[in-house]
Formats: sequence, structure tokens, C-alpha cells
Amino acid sequence: MNFTHKVRHARERSNSLLCIGLDTDWRTVPDSIRGSANPVLEFNRAIVEATKDIACSYKLNLAYYEAYGEAGIEAMKGTLDAIPEHIVTIGDAKRGDIGNTSDQYAYAYQELYNFDSITINPLMGTDAVQPFLKHSDRGVFFLGLTSNPGAQDFEYLELKNGKRLYEEITDKVREWNREKHNCGLVVGATKPAELRALRERAPELPFLVPGVGAQGGSLAEVLAANDEGEILINVSRAVAGASKGEDFAEAARAAALKLVQEMRELSPMLRNSLQSA
Amino acid sequence: MNFTHKVRHARERSNSLLCIGLDTDWRTVPDSIRGSANPVLEFNRAIVEATKDIACSYKLNLAYYEAYGEAGIEAMKGTLDAIPEHIVTIGDAKRGDIGNTSDQYAYAYQELYNFDSITINPLMGTDAVQPFLKHSDRGVFFLGLTSNPGAQDFEYLELKNGKRLYEEITDKVREWNREKHNCGLVVGATKPAELRALRERAPELPFLVPGVGAQGGSLAEVLAANDEGEILINVSRAVAGASKGEDFAEAARAAALKLVQEMRELSPMLRNSLQSA
Repeated sequence: MNFTHKVRHARERSNSLLCIGLDTDWRTVPDSIRGSANPVLEFNRAIVEATKDIACSYKLNLAYYEAYGEAGIEAMKGTLDAIPEHIVTIGDAKRGDIGNTSDQYAYAYQELYNFDSITINPLMGTDAVQPFLKHSDRGVFFLGLTSNPGAQDFEYLELKNGKRLYEEITDKVREWNREKHNCGLVVGATKPAELRALRERAPELPFLVPGVGAQGGSLAEVLAANDEGEILINVSRAVAGASKGEDFAEAARAAALKLVQEMRELSPMLRNSLQSA
Repeated sequence: MNFTHKVRHARERSNSLLCIGLDTDWRTVPDSIRGSANPVLEFNRAIVEATKDIACSYKLNLAYYEAYGEAGIEAMKGTLDAIPEHIVTIGDAKRGDIGNTSDQYAYAYQELYNFDSITINPLMGTDAVQPFLKHSDRGVFFLGLTSNPGAQDFEYLELKNGKRLYEEITDKVREWNREKHNCGLVVGATKPAELRALRERAPELPFLVPGVGAQGGSLAEVLAANDEGEILINVSRAVAGASKGEDFAEAARAAALKLVQEMRELSPMLRNSLQSA
């Protein structure tokens, strides 16, 4: 099963487009689990347990695990172990380097930690990203158009050939995807008009869309713009951070379920049934 | 002391421009140390011990430490502990993400691991890099023009405003540097003509130049092109990988010393004295 198929399979089985972001900060976990051996792992396991029947994907933001040292590696591994096989796991790494270095990153995240997919920064070009694209069942989401204000500095730049840089990147990602169907694109939820145009430009690429919720993106606008392409909509703080109390897992489930119900009403790709949740 | 001053101070004290890259692969350390508790740390300590009087900087390529799991964190910390205070340490991370995520990376590499500087990918723009620029004594080397073939895909793209993308990035890095003098630029050694033009464009920025040695860049061409700007010339495999035998540390010292002697002959910024080594 190539990566694009895995995304579709996860969507069909969960009847959901929800990617739950696990940006778990060891300094701000709920008091109720602060005494456990590895509070970040404890937190993540509880969130996964409470949401795994309605999540299509989980995204671990590696910055938070790196900021937790050795315990962060333990938390990352343990979290991945807790996620059911059919759900798409994403290591949000935004790495990218020359070939022999990218080989090491690919080894770390595809073999040692066994993520289904990772996010990669495409700036250094083809030879820098090839080590991540060797296996058809391991996906790469390339930064296309991000949701932050700084996207204006470089991503939006107009090129002499008439394209914007993010459009040039998208065209290159389509080339990289042709052989193994294992590429996707990160497109910020705060830019629905551009998302619509990118969907027309690259109908075959799965999109990973951060920015709904805390960053201000609208779920309805994103789904209208996306049409019927494969899409994973990431929500981090608004789900995993829904409550800081003892009820954090139940609150996360309630927030996730509300989002999934909205998705099922809004997206023609999902069955409009609430009972399965 | 701001970061630019720290680079200058390290250059003056070592009378060297050599940055030794520690891309230590746990799978290929010399047999003679394979039995030690942490062979990567053992290897790095021996290299640092053998070269610290002639090195201006050490660069740890984080991919290799991530590929080594928990032991990689131990090796990274222990290596940093072994490097004398006046030498510039670089975490070659090539990170970059939206603000709250970059905050975590900045915490990890500036506070938890205490690198003097890190490499950062500028693609996501100003707000994404700000968290790394809060402290004048902590430097950031931004990817400017890299030494690999894939640099053609995006970095060289011609913009409507007449610049190449890497020139636009360089101009932005100059802006980011203005307040705290803590920015530098990564410029590949395989492009001496472009390095010369970038040096004229940004005389105040320290350059981190990989690509001499295994990647084919010429030390003489780089130093001629650089004129008198602050510059750290990174060599990884040709120093730390000079021998796979028991004599790996002595071989590394011999290779480093040869490079430093060449630098002292070629660069007007160094005292042309060999006896101090």
C-alpha cells in the first residue's frame, strides 16, 4: 500500500479527516499526571486512547520532544506504540539537508522511530529530499504554503517565470511524487483561496492542513476549498489542550468529536453518519 | 559579547578558521572504541582533545545524533562539555517552524544543550526565526546558498525583482542581524564566485562554509573569494574521518593541522605563524 493509499484507507476507516496534533509541552501537562514516570507519554497515551476511534492521523511536533531530552525520545516511542496501525502517524520534523545527512534523518524517523510520514522543508532541492522518498509506504509532507505571516517573506515571492515560490515548490513536489505516490503538501488553513488553487494544481497530493482552531483557520472554508482531495486537518491545542484539568482526555474527545461531526456534515468524502462515533 | 564578536574572538585565539564537523555515525566508529559505553562520545572526545588548540569551531550535525536515539543525546551533551569555552559550537539543525514551535527548538538547542549557535532554514520567514534571535550571544547561521546540486531547484530561482532567491534570503538575514549582531549565513564552498558576490553583499555576516574536502570545494578559492569577512570553514569527513584505525585522533589532528597551515598561508586574517600549532 503506497502512502497515498494509506491516507485514503485511514480516512475511510475512521470516517474522519482529523489529525490530532500532539504538541505536548512537558512544562504544562495537567497537574493530575505530573507525578507519573513520564508525564508527556502518560498524557499522549490518554489522548490517543480517548480519540483513536475518530482520528485519521496523529502528528507529533518533534520540537516538543526534543525540548524534553532523553525522556522526549521515550515519550515519542511510547506514543507511537499506542497508536493503532491503520492510523497515519506524522513526525512534524521539517528537516532537510544534503544527501548523506538526510539519509541519517530518514533512518531516524522512518526506521528507528517508524513514523508513517514526516514533514520536510524542500528548500535545498531534489538531492536533499531523495533519501526520504525511497519507500512508497513512507510519506513526506513538504512545506508548500504555511499559515504564518512570515510566508510573505519568501513563499509568496513572485518568480520571473510567473509563478509564486510556493507554486514552484508544489510543481516540484508533484514531480517527486510521480514514481512512488508518497508525497503530500503542507498548506495552511488560513489561506483558503490559495488552498483551492493548490488543490486544482495538485489534485493527487494529500494535503496536511494546520491552522484550524488556535491559528484562526475555518474548517468550513478549508473543506469547501479542498473539494475531494485527500486531506488531513491538523488541530493541536484545541483538542489536546481542551482542558488542563483531570478531565483532559474526555475534554479532548469531546472537542475532537465536535470537529469530526462538523467534518462529516461538511465534506462529501465522509459518510454523514454520527452513530459510528 | 555578541555572537559576531564571539566568532572573531575564537578566530583570533585559535589563529584558525577551521570548523571541525562531528558527523559521527555510531555504525562506523573505529573498531578500537566500539566496546566503550558510548562510542560516539568516546570518538568525539578524542577528536576534540586532539584538535582543540587549532579549531575555531566544532559543528555537530544533529542528524547523526538523532539517528542514535537516547545515546545520541548523551553523546551530544558530553561532546559539548568537552569543547573549551572560547570555541564556537554549532548545532547543525536546519530547523525552522512557526513561532511557538521555534520557541521549543530554541529552548532545546540554546538552553537545554547550550550550543553557541545553530543552523536554521529561513523558508518560513521572519516570525518563524524570531525565537532563535532573542539573545545577542546566541548565533544563527541561516541557509543562504548550499553546496549541493539541488540548490538549483529553488535557491537559484530568479525573482521578478531581479534577485535570485538566495540573494533575497541574504538581504533578509542582514535585516534580522541588525539589532543583535547574531546572524550568519551558510554558503557552500563549491560556489566561489557566488561566495565572493555574497561577501560583497553582506560584509558584516559571519559565513559558515561547508563543502571543502569531500564535497569538492577548494580552500584557496574560498579564501580568495571571502576577502576579510568572518568565516568558519567546515570540514567533516576529511578531518574526523581521516583514519578508521586506532590512530584516528592523531590522523584527525594531522589533517586539521595541514588545513590550518594552509589557511594561515592563504588568509590575510590569520597570523602566518606555524609554531603556535
